[in-house]
Amino acid sequence: MAFYFLSTLVCFLLRAEAFAPEPRLTWQEAEISLTRFQVQDVYNYSTLLLSDNRDILYIGAREVIFAVNSRNITEKKHEAYWKVTEVKKEECSRKGKSKQTECLNYIRVLQPFNESALFVCGTNAFQPVCDILELKKFKLLGKNEDGRGRCPFDPAQSYTSIMVDGDLYSGTSFTFLGSEPIICRHSQLLSNLRTEYAVPWLNEPRFVHADVIRAPDNNPEGDDDKIYFFFTEVSVEYDFFNKLLIPRIARVCKNDQGGLRTLQKKWTTFLKARLICHSSENNLIFNVVNDVFILKSPTLKEPVIYGVFTSHLNNVGMSAVCSYSLSAVEDVFTKGKYMQSATVEQAHTKWVQFNGEIPKPRPGACINNEAKAMNYSSSLNLPDKTLQFVKDHPLMDDSVAPIGKRPKLVNPNVSYTQIVVDQVKALDGHTYDVMFISTDKGMLHKAISHDTEIRIIEEIVLFPAHQSVKTLLLSDKQSKRYIYAGSNTEVVQSPVAFCEKLTSCTECILTRDPYCAWHPVKNSCVSILDESNTDRLLIQALNGDASQCPDSADKGIRKSMRYKVKAGNTVELKCSYKSNLASVFWTFNNKTLKISPPKYLLQSTLIILNLTEWDAGTYHCWSKETIMDKVFSQVVTKHDLEIERTPIPLTSTAQS
Amino acid sequence: MAFYFLSTLVCFLLRAEAFAPEPRLTWQEAEISLTRFQVQDVYNYSTLLLSDNRDILYIGAREVIFAVNSRNITEKKHEAYWKVTEVKKEECSRKGKSKQTECLNYIRVLQPFNESALFVCGTNAFQPVCDILELKKFKLLGKNEDGRGRCPFDPAQSYTSIMVDGDLYSGTSFTFLGSEPIICRHSQLLSNLRTEYAVPWLNEPRFVHADVIRAPDNNPEGDDDKIYFFFTEVSVEYDFFNKLLIPRIARVCKNDQGGLRTLQKKWTTFLKARLICHSSENNLIFNVVNDVFILKSPTLKEPVIYGVFTSHLNNVGMSAVCSYSLSAVEDVFTKGKYMQSATVEQAHTKWVQFNGEIPKPRPGACINNEAKAMNYSSSLNLPDKTLQFVKDHPLMDDSVAPIGKRPKLVNPNVSYTQIVVDQVKALDGHTYDVMFISTDKGMLHKAISHDTEIRIIEEIVLFPAHQSVKTLLLSDKQSKRYIYAGSNTEVVQSPVAFCEKLTSCTECILTRDPYCAWHPVKNSCVSILDESNTDRLLIQALNGDASQCPDSADKGIRKSMRYKVKAGNTVELKCSYKSNLASVFWTFNNKTLKISPPKYLLQSTLIILNLTEWDAGTYHCWSKETIMDKVFSQVVTKHDLEIERTPIPLTSTAQS
Repeated sequence: MAFYFLSTLVCFLLRAEAFAPEPRLTWQEAEISLTRFQVQDVYNYSTLLLSDNRDILYIGAREVIFAVNSRNITEKKHEAYWKVTEVKKEECSRKGKSKQTECLNYIRVLQPFNESALFVCGTNAFQPVCDILELKKFKLLGKNEDGRGRCPFDPAQSYTSIMVDGDLYSGTSFTFLGSEPIICRHSQLLSNLRTEYAVPWLNEPRFVHADVIRAPDNNPEGDDDKIYFFFTEVSVEYDFFNKLLIPRIARVCKNDQGGLRTLQKKWTTFLKARLICHSSENNLIFNVVNDVFILKSPTLKEPVIYGVFTSHLNNVGMSAVCSYSLSAVEDVFTKGKYMQSATVEQAHTKWVQFNGEIPKPRPGACINNEAKAMNYSSSLNLPDKTLQFVKDHPLMDDSVAPIGKRPKLVNPNVSYTQIVVDQVKALDGHTYDVMFISTDKGMLHKAISHDTEIRIIEEIVLFPAHQSVKTLLLSDKQSKRYIYAGSNTEVVQSPVAFCEKLTSCTECILTRDPYCAWHPVKNSCVSILDESNTDRLLIQALNGDASQCPDSADKGIRKSMRYKVKAGNTVELKCSYKSNLASVFWTFNNKTLKISPPKYLLQSTLIILNLTEWDAGTYHCWSKETIMDKVFSQVVTKHDLEIERTPIPLTSTAQS
Repeated sequence: MAFYFLSTLVCFLLRAEAFAPEPRLTWQEAEISLTRFQVQDVYNYSTLLLSDNRDILYIGAREVIFAVNSRNITEKKHEAYWKVTEVKKEECSRKGKSKQTECLNYIRVLQPFNESALFVCGTNAFQPVCDILELKKFKLLGKNEDGRGRCPFDPAQSYTSIMVDGDLYSGTSFTFLGSEPIICRHSQLLSNLRTEYAVPWLNEPRFVHADVIRAPDNNPEGDDDKIYFFFTEVSVEYDFFNKLLIPRIARVCKNDQGGLRTLQKKWTTFLKARLICHSSENNLIFNVVNDVFILKSPTLKEPVIYGVFTSHLNNVGMSAVCSYSLSAVEDVFTKGKYMQSATVEQAHTKWVQFNGEIPKPRPGACINNEAKAMNYSSSLNLPDKTLQFVKDHPLMDDSVAPIGKRPKLVNPNVSYTQIVVDQVKALDGHTYDVMFISTDKGMLHKAISHDTEIRIIEEIVLFPAHQSVKTLLLSDKQSKRYIYAGSNTEVVQSPVAFCEKLTSCTECILTRDPYCAWHPVKNSCVSILDESNTDRLLIQALNGDASQCPDSADKGIRKSMRYKVKAGNTVELKCSYKSNLASVFWTFNNKTLKISPPKYLLQSTLIILNLTEWDAGTYHCWSKETIMDKVFSQVVTKHDLEIERTPIPLTSTAQS
């Protein structure tokens, strides 16, 4: 048993090591006591919206919307219940849905409407409705607009939405059965537009994210703002043993008005492409995108798209993070080849690269300078050839390859669900992208990728009961930054770093967290975002070089113990250290201690049975850690052991 | 660290449990001391051939062929060295190959030629040659026939061969570079035939097995004997992100003579089809076949094909066993649809189902009654239409599905390399198929599949240094059956069962091995194949019901210990049990013992620190195992503990 157990374990660890870094630190609930928001009998805290300038977090749950203090989410400011009427519930139940779970109002859209109102939609017992939430009184106006196309009927179905200049762009399904997928715009000024209901446009998509990228002010192509959608759908272009899922990015232009005859009330700018997230070394294919975060920052040359992926092929719970540059995406859409479908032997549809002549203006392009020069000022007057082409060829042949042609991170042991990315300027002047990635077991991984090194700085137990993290949100205020995570039962608020939990300078440096630095005067590990910490004093060394620390070696000892034990008895010498990457070794009177019976190591605890006077002396427990190929050892605990002699030492007798 | 370690471990164990059974017993080298054959400086024991009526095992290794006693392989009977000449070695080395490893003679073909000779081929420093090994003197005749097409040039390349009625059928590569794959026949009486050198026929195949299935004597279709080939190749019919490997079965007919003009000297009966080995519950796709064994037995209605598979998609070391009925294979070849390639948009080749008219006689069929009725007595006079069709359509559209539409066994933690299957008639009258499956780490799994239950009876450490098992052979003599396994460094001989190692009736029954039964008179667990064991006395209960055992409960105790220990001291109570599926629990004076400090459990050993007089009494270590939903517990060890009182009990002092 033991052999089998150990051998499978060793093989498992070797395997794990070959892929992903282990989180260096693990923060349990008891160590960090995160701030939580939970209301009895309220479930499905799935929609979060932050109003940073008001310090308010809006939470859309089942049948209710909350407003809480974003600096302390336990502090509830307002609530607005939005329940399904008994009549509607009955009606829904008669259609075969569950009265207790499905025939309720799940808030799915929670978007800023104007300065004083939010736009909200809910599933409303399979009859989606939308309304305006007036913020002053925190009351719904009771508009009860038809929510079809903006909000799913079924709370189990995927959805995404984004409000852009007062218009709602959404990806969802249009019917009771959820069989008609749709990407559409509901607009007050522009025309409402939607996708064609056709397999080449959308084929059983699972929507995960939508966001807008603004055209630069002075862009030479006279380009438009674009809205990007991310989803996984069933491939039409590949043949496989069975249905092959594929991750996609699609985009439309903000000023699309639809066609006049062809594509009337439909997108004329809908194009989609494959997102590639493969690790060719291990032949790993991540073909399901679970979430996307677009990092936009004035310090970046261009926005970077971060996605978390899993696989549905031989999936044993692996995940990856891939990132894409916006220019790689735009190259595919503006310069790439299209795919076309062809009928083979009158019976089979196959998708191949289109090599014929592409009409002008380029199909699917926004109304840019090129189109304007050809006297097309709106999609309404685009030539029929261009419109017919984009209607038949929404899929690009070129794929969007990730930055570095490989995943940023591959983790074989978790299912990642959500991602947000923060930027922090470290004291070395370099700006780091810090990824916060949640799992389906309630964990949050904080990872950093720099040069060729990828590491998970820490793992935070967000939900001790291991609920899946359904939604993740980052507040990007300069000084106090938080991560908000929603599950089926609660919302939790976590700081982006736990610097103050690291009690010695060495630990503060070894964590290599760009948010943290050692403050020699305060004698504590502090957040560099905190304005009270001036740069000049702080010690930060992201290469893990703790030699700058003022600590002497002895100061590193976290605990010192003294024992006086009778010969023949037993002693347990404990040693607890924080880093998952460290290993422990013991010294006795400053020499390495060999652990063999009657000495045992239980985890990191040293047990000595049948003590003799030779065991008296000083024991040090050391933790050893390799950082950037350098081995770093520090004393964790010191134990001084004194043995009382007994006059006649009696030994145990055993007969078998 | 501990938490992370444990949590990943738990998740790993849960994951493993969801798929495959753990081997119930593990036999270490020291417990079973298997018989081994190894000659110094001889490597690559890759080819094994058994002459059961002579009790001889022939072993083809690097530059030498051995004959050993098959009942005790340490007993070498003969050896015939077959070395590469210095000239050839030099020549090979000049072509850029390694003189020390590649430019040697690796025996790859070892087939019976006639009663008194073997047919052998070797790679011969990248100039393959074949020869006749005369058995009486055990000498090569020095024929030095050109071995191209029968033996690979490169020892690293895949190969398979089978001798049928004096003709050698082989799958290998034809050139120095190994770029031209070939399935061919070298015949003395019939014409030599080969495959077309074309992607649709063979596309980078890796050959794993070949075997013959004889046509039944009185078969109504007047069918021919068929030779089946098994290999993994690159798919032409699927489109995937990158090259998609696919497992295949191909077959040719023995009386094929090639065509007269079309397909002259080529197979007119070469057809191939996909082998499916998917587990749809977990969405696991096993698309690489590593080995095949065809179980042929007079007791079977039809032969059964067993294959071991791995996956190259997101592969993290998973394996499966799938089995196929011969009739499912034949249905595909004799009634299935063909595939055809079509050119799409002048640039892309796509494979689709052929729905046109199929010429007669059916392309690829043997010369059977149907052909004979049409006056085609040989492939030489088949109509050009039939020949041209089979030349262009060697691939079937239908796939061969496994028996039960799913794998017999899925194991997420090993890479299976080879398989042999034995049949044993248990005392219940039922005949069981027992699978012996080797791994790339030197293990052998003995598995049985009955009704819906699959279990791995035991795991045998064949090679303690974890060498990959390259070849596996079963001797199917009635009384003494052995498994022979070859690795790079040695050959090992293992009995098919280890009944005699199970010392109590309960253990003999709980192992549920159809080879083993309890002999109440001999008071030992015996092999039912041994003729000295008469059936009437033996106790066998493959449902694991040990209640028939004559043992009283106390007899089950394997070890009984007595201790006399001073109060304040420490005691270690050991408990070793064999089953990997059992868990241990302890009782104290016949009540369940709660393990908490100062009591510790280290694996199954109970450690009690700081003994007091309250600890005196009787401790029983129990192993508990669930078999077919019934829990079965048995005492493993009994410990009687007596405590000597000390006049003044002194306790240890600790200050922190």
